[in-house]
Amino acid sequence: MQLNIDRLIAYFGGVNALAEALKQHYPDSAASTAAIYKWRKRGSLPLNQLQKIILMAEKQNKPLDINAFMQHNNITLERPRMPSTNNQVIIFDTTLRDGEQSPGAAMTKEEKIRIARQLEKLGVDVIEAGFAAASPGDFDAIHSIAEIIQHATVCSLSRANERDVRKAGEAVAPAKRKRIHTFIATSPLHMEHKLRMKPQQVKETAVKAVKIAREYTDDVEFSCEDALRSDINFLAEICQAVIEAGATTINIPDTVGYAIPFQTEAFFRELIQKTPNSDKVIWSAHCHNDLGLAVGNSLAAVSGGARQVECTINGLGERAGNASLEEVVMALKTRHDIFGLETNIDTTQIVPTSKMVSTVTGYPIQPNKAIVGANAFAHESGIHQDGILKCRETYEIMSAESVGWSTNRLTLGKLSGRNAFRTKLQELGIELDSEEALNAAFARFKELADKKREIFDEDLHALVSDELESRAPDRYKYISLSIRSETGEEPVAEIVFNLDGNEKRASGHGSGPIDAVFKAIESEAHSSADLQLYSVNAITAGPESQGEVTVRLSREGHLVSGQGTDTDIIVASAKAYLSALNKLNSQPRVKAQGII
Amino acid sequence: MQLNIDRLIAYFGGVNALAEALKQHYPDSAASTAAIYKWRKRGSLPLNQLQKIILMAEKQNKPLDINAFMQHNNITLERPRMPSTNNQVIIFDTTLRDGEQSPGAAMTKEEKIRIARQLEKLGVDVIEAGFAAASPGDFDAIHSIAEIIQHATVCSLSRANERDVRKAGEAVAPAKRKRIHTFIATSPLHMEHKLRMKPQQVKETAVKAVKIAREYTDDVEFSCEDALRSDINFLAEICQAVIEAGATTINIPDTVGYAIPFQTEAFFRELIQKTPNSDKVIWSAHCHNDLGLAVGNSLAAVSGGARQVECTINGLGERAGNASLEEVVMALKTRHDIFGLETNIDTTQIVPTSKMVSTVTGYPIQPNKAIVGANAFAHESGIHQDGILKCRETYEIMSAESVGWSTNRLTLGKLSGRNAFRTKLQELGIELDSEEALNAAFARFKELADKKREIFDEDLHALVSDELESRAPDRYKYISLSIRSETGEEPVAEIVFNLDGNEKRASGHGSGPIDAVFKAIESEAHSSADLQLYSVNAITAGPESQGEVTVRLSREGHLVSGQGTDTDIIVASAKAYLSALNKLNSQPRVKAQGII
Repeated sequence: MQLNIDRLIAYFGGVNALAEALKQHYPDSAASTAAIYKWRKRGSLPLNQLQKIILMAEKQNKPLDINAFMQHNNITLERPRMPSTNNQVIIFDTTLRDGEQSPGAAMTKEEKIRIARQLEKLGVDVIEAGFAAASPGDFDAIHSIAEIIQHATVCSLSRANERDVRKAGEAVAPAKRKRIHTFIATSPLHMEHKLRMKPQQVKETAVKAVKIAREYTDDVEFSCEDALRSDINFLAEICQAVIEAGATTINIPDTVGYAIPFQTEAFFRELIQKTPNSDKVIWSAHCHNDLGLAVGNSLAAVSGGARQVECTINGLGERAGNASLEEVVMALKTRHDIFGLETNIDTTQIVPTSKMVSTVTGYPIQPNKAIVGANAFAHESGIHQDGILKCRETYEIMSAESVGWSTNRLTLGKLSGRNAFRTKLQELGIELDSEEALNAAFARFKELADKKREIFDEDLHALVSDELESRAPDRYKYISLSIRSETGEEPVAEIVFNLDGNEKRASGHGSGPIDAVFKAIESEAHSSADLQLYSVNAITAGPESQGEVTVRLSREGHLVSGQGTDTDIIVASAKAYLSALNKLNSQPRVKAQGII
Repeated sequence: MQLNIDRLIAYFGGVNALAEALKQHYPDSAASTAAIYKWRKRGSLPLNQLQKIILMAEKQNKPLDINAFMQHNNITLERPRMPSTNNQVIIFDTTLRDGEQSPGAAMTKEEKIRIARQLEKLGVDVIEAGFAAASPGDFDAIHSIAEIIQHATVCSLSRANERDVRKAGEAVAPAKRKRIHTFIATSPLHMEHKLRMKPQQVKETAVKAVKIAREYTDDVEFSCEDALRSDINFLAEICQAVIEAGATTINIPDTVGYAIPFQTEAFFRELIQKTPNSDKVIWSAHCHNDLGLAVGNSLAAVSGGARQVECTINGLGERAGNASLEEVVMALKTRHDIFGLETNIDTTQIVPTSKMVSTVTGYPIQPNKAIVGANAFAHESGIHQDGILKCRETYEIMSAESVGWSTNRLTLGKLSGRNAFRTKLQELGIELDSEEALNAAFARFKELADKKREIFDEDLHALVSDELESRAPDRYKYISLSIRSETGEEPVAEIVFNLDGNEKRASGHGSGPIDAVFKAIESEAHSSADLQLYSVNAITAGPESQGEVTVRLSREGHLVSGQGTDTDIIVASAKAYLSALNKLNSQPRVKAQGII
C-alpha cells in the first residue's frame, strides 16, 4: 500500500494551493511549497503533516477518504528500512500446542478441532496443532485436524530425533499443506545441562532431523531453543547447516522471555546477515511474555527481518504465555505507516476466536487485556458524554468493530425453529457432525430459551460446547440437584448423577452450597483429587446470564480442567466438577521438556 | 554495579590460565587470550562469554558467586550508551488516579488509603493519589493520603487552569513531599478538536499553570497530553518554556497507546536533545497498552533518556490500561546487565500489592499475566518431574520468591487470639484506626475460622476489607439469607437486610439462585440499575475457600462496583449487590477529559 501523493495534492488544487491552504490553517507550522514538492518527489510525507492535511480537509467540509488515495504496492510514509523486501508476515498460531501447555489447559480432540476451524476462519497461515509424539491422543487430534483444515498449513512439533519426526510426519500426512517443526536447544546452558551434548553433536542432530522431515514434506521449520541466549556465531553455523539440509523456515525463540526489543532487532539483523543463504528461508520469532515484552520483541524481530510471528490467542501459553496474536496483528495493522506489512488475518474474527479459546480452556480474559478485554474499547463514561470530543480519533486508534466487537446481537429467541438454529450455528462456524448431535443441541437450546429471554452468540457457543464434549464416552453424567441453604445452618446439597451407567444419589454438607455439592459428589466418586482452581464467568451480561464454571483438579501431578454451563451457578459447578472427573482418568502425556 | 574483570580473571589464575581452561571446555568457541586481554582493558565482556565462564566454573567444582565480583559504580557488560548519567529510575505509581479511571474501579477513601500505604511499603517514589478538582471526595482522599504517607511523594493531577492547580496544591499541602502534576494537550488533533486553541495559547496556558503550581511546591510535573502524536519542534518549544517556568519533571505520554518502541526511544532522544536546559528536569514516560506495547515503550523511553516511568499495579487503567509496574520493575531488575539502572522498589512486595489492588477494584488477574498471574511461575508439571533439568536457570530468569510469591503460608487458626490477630494485621500493613474496628474485624475472623480450617493472608485482606468498607454510613446492610433450589423448579431466595435502619424481608424467584437473590433485593430497593458484570474469585485454593464476588451496576452512565466475601458464594453475591447499591448513590465526578 502506498499513498498516491500526486492525487492527494491534486485533490487540494495543486502544490501552491495546498501550501496556501495549510498556511491559513497552521500559520505557525505550515509546510512550505518547497517541502510539498519534496514529498511529491520522494513519494511520501511525514505522518504529522498528513494528520494536519486530514484535519484541514474536515474543516473545509471536504473530508478526506484516505483509502481512496492508497495504491497497492510498497509502503507509505517514512519508516525505517526493512532488511527484507517481502511484505507479508506469516501468522503461525500455536494456541493448540504452546497454549495447551498452560497448566490445566489441556483440550479434548473435539475442542481442538473446533478451535482449529475457527483459526482457519480467522485466517492464520499456519496452525501448530500439537506435538504428535507426546501421546496417542495428541497424534490423533493432529491427524483429525489435518484431515479437516482446507487452507491453512497444519503443523506438528517434534524434538530432533527420528521417532518424533516420523510421528509428526505421519500425523500431518492427510493435510493439504503440511509442516513439520523440529527443534533442539542451542544455548550453552541448555546444551550443557539439558542435552549434555557438544555444539557439533547438536548441529549434526539438527541436520539429521531436518533431512528426515523432508521425506514427509517440503515445508520444514527448524527452531533453536533458547536462541536469544545462544552464541550468535554458533547459531549462524547451525542455521547454515539446516538450510542446506532443507529447512524452509528458521525460528529464533526467546524461550525464557528474557529479551529486550532493541536487542532482539539487532540480534535478528546480525544473525540473518551472518547466515549464508539466509534469503532461502523465512525467519521467525517466538517470544514469551515473562517480562511483558513478548509483543514488543515480536515486532522488533519483524523490524530485524523476521517474516513469521509465532503467537497464541489471548497470549495463552506456559508461565506468562506467548505473544498475543491479536496484539501483534493489530499493531502491524494500526501502524501500517511504520511497518508497511500485511497479514492474512480477518481481524473481525479476533474477538469471537478469543472468546472461544477462553471458554474452552477456562482461562478468563482480564478486563484490561488489550484488544480482547471487556474494557479495551470502553472509556470511562464521563468522557464520552463530554461534548468537546467531536473527533473520534482523539482517543481511538482503531475501532471496536474492526476486531469483531459488536453490540451484543440478539441472535435467537424462544420461537426460533430448528432451521434457524442450524443456520446460526453455521454462521458461528460451529459444525456438528451428525443429525443426532444437532437434535440434542437444539433440545438444549429450547430448554435454555425457556429460562432466558435473550440468547446471544456466546450462549450458543457454550451450549454447543457441552454438546461437543458429551460425545466422548463419559463415566460421570449430571442428572439433578437440590440445595437448601439458610443463614446459621450448614448448606446441604443432594445430587443425582450417573456413574458408569448407574444412578447415584449423594448428599453433602459444606461451608457453602458449592462446597456441599463437591463433597456430595466425592462421597461417591472418591477421586482423591485436589481442587486447584474454581472460577466463574458470566457468559453474557445481565441477571439472567448463564454462569460458566471451570473446575481444575489435580492428582499426582496430573492437572485437568472441567467446564459446566447453566443459568444456575450451583448446577454449573456440579457439571464442571463431573466434567473434570471425566478427564481425570485420561492418559498423561510425554512432555517435550520445555520447548521453545 | 560493575564487574571487576581483574578479580574474575585472577580467580581463574590469570589471562593465560583462563584462556586455556576455556579452550578445553569449548574447543570450538573459546575466547582467545587476546580477547581476554581486551575484556580486561575495557572493563567489560560479552554476556554469552560470562555465561560460559560461569558454566565452566560449575563443572570445575568451583562455582562462581558472581556478586562477589561486582563493585558498586557504573554498569557492567556491554550495553547501549544511555543519554543520561543518572542511574536511578523514579517509579511513579498512578493506580489511584489513572488506574481508578478503569470503568467501575472507583475506590472509597478508605480503600485508597489502604492501597497508598501498601504502595509506600512497596517503595514507589511518587504516588499519584487522584485528581483533586474532580470532586470533593477525590480532594478529601488525596488530602488524607498526604497526611498519612511518610516517605513517598504524594501527587495530584490537575488540568492546566488556575482552579485545578490551586485545588491540587491544597490537596497535597499536608504531605512531607508533595508534587503537582499539570497537563495540557499538545498534538494537532487534540489542540484543534478538544482545546480549540492555537499552539501559542497552549504554551502560555502551560507556563501559567506551572508558575501557579510553584507557589505550592518546588516539585512540579508537566505533561504534554498525546505527546507522541505531537510535532517534536513544538514540544521542544513548550518544554523549554515550562522548564523556565519551574517544572522539574516533564512527562511525555503515549496517551492513545499508539507508539512502537524503536520510535519511542528515538523520539525521547531527539526531544531531549532539542530542548534547551533539558538536563534541568527528569524526563518521564507514561504509556498505554492498547497494542500490548506499554512496557516495551516505557523501557524504550528509558533507553532514550527517561528517568521516571509512570505505571500502575496490574497494568490497571483506562481501556487496555497502563504499563504494569511489576513488569517494568522486573525487566529493569532482571536485565540489569542491559540497563544498569536501579529502582527503590522492594520487589518482594509486588505480589501482595497486586492482590490488594485486584481485591479492592474487583479486577481479576488473568492466570497468564506476567509476574503476578497465578501461572507466571508455574511450569507444566511434566517438565519439573523431568530429571534432566538439574539447572534451575534453564527455564527461570527470576525467582517466584523475589516478587513475593511464597507458598500459601498458614497464618492464623481457630485458636489464635486477639493479639496475634492484631500483630498479623500489622505485618500485612493493614491499619485499623480504632479499637472498635479491630474488635469488629476480630469477631468476623472468629466467625470465619469456625467455617474454614485454614486462614491465609488473602483471607485476612478480604475480611478486613469488608471492615474498612463498612465504616462509611451504609444504607443497605446484609442480615441473613435462605435458598431453596431443586432441579425442575425455579430457585427461591429469601433475604433479610437493613435499609436505612429498617429491617426488610424480601423473596424472589429466578433462573438461578443468584438471579433469585438479586430479584429479591430489587423488589425492595427499586434501584433501576443494570447489572453490568458479575464475577467470582476464589480467594484461596481448596474447597473451603472464600468466594469473593464483584457486582458492577450502572445507572444513567454512572458505574459502580461492589464486593462481597463469604465461604458461601450466594451470600457473597448478596453482600456484593448490597455494597454496589450503597455506592450507587455517591456523587459522580468531574472528568479530566481523557487525560494522558
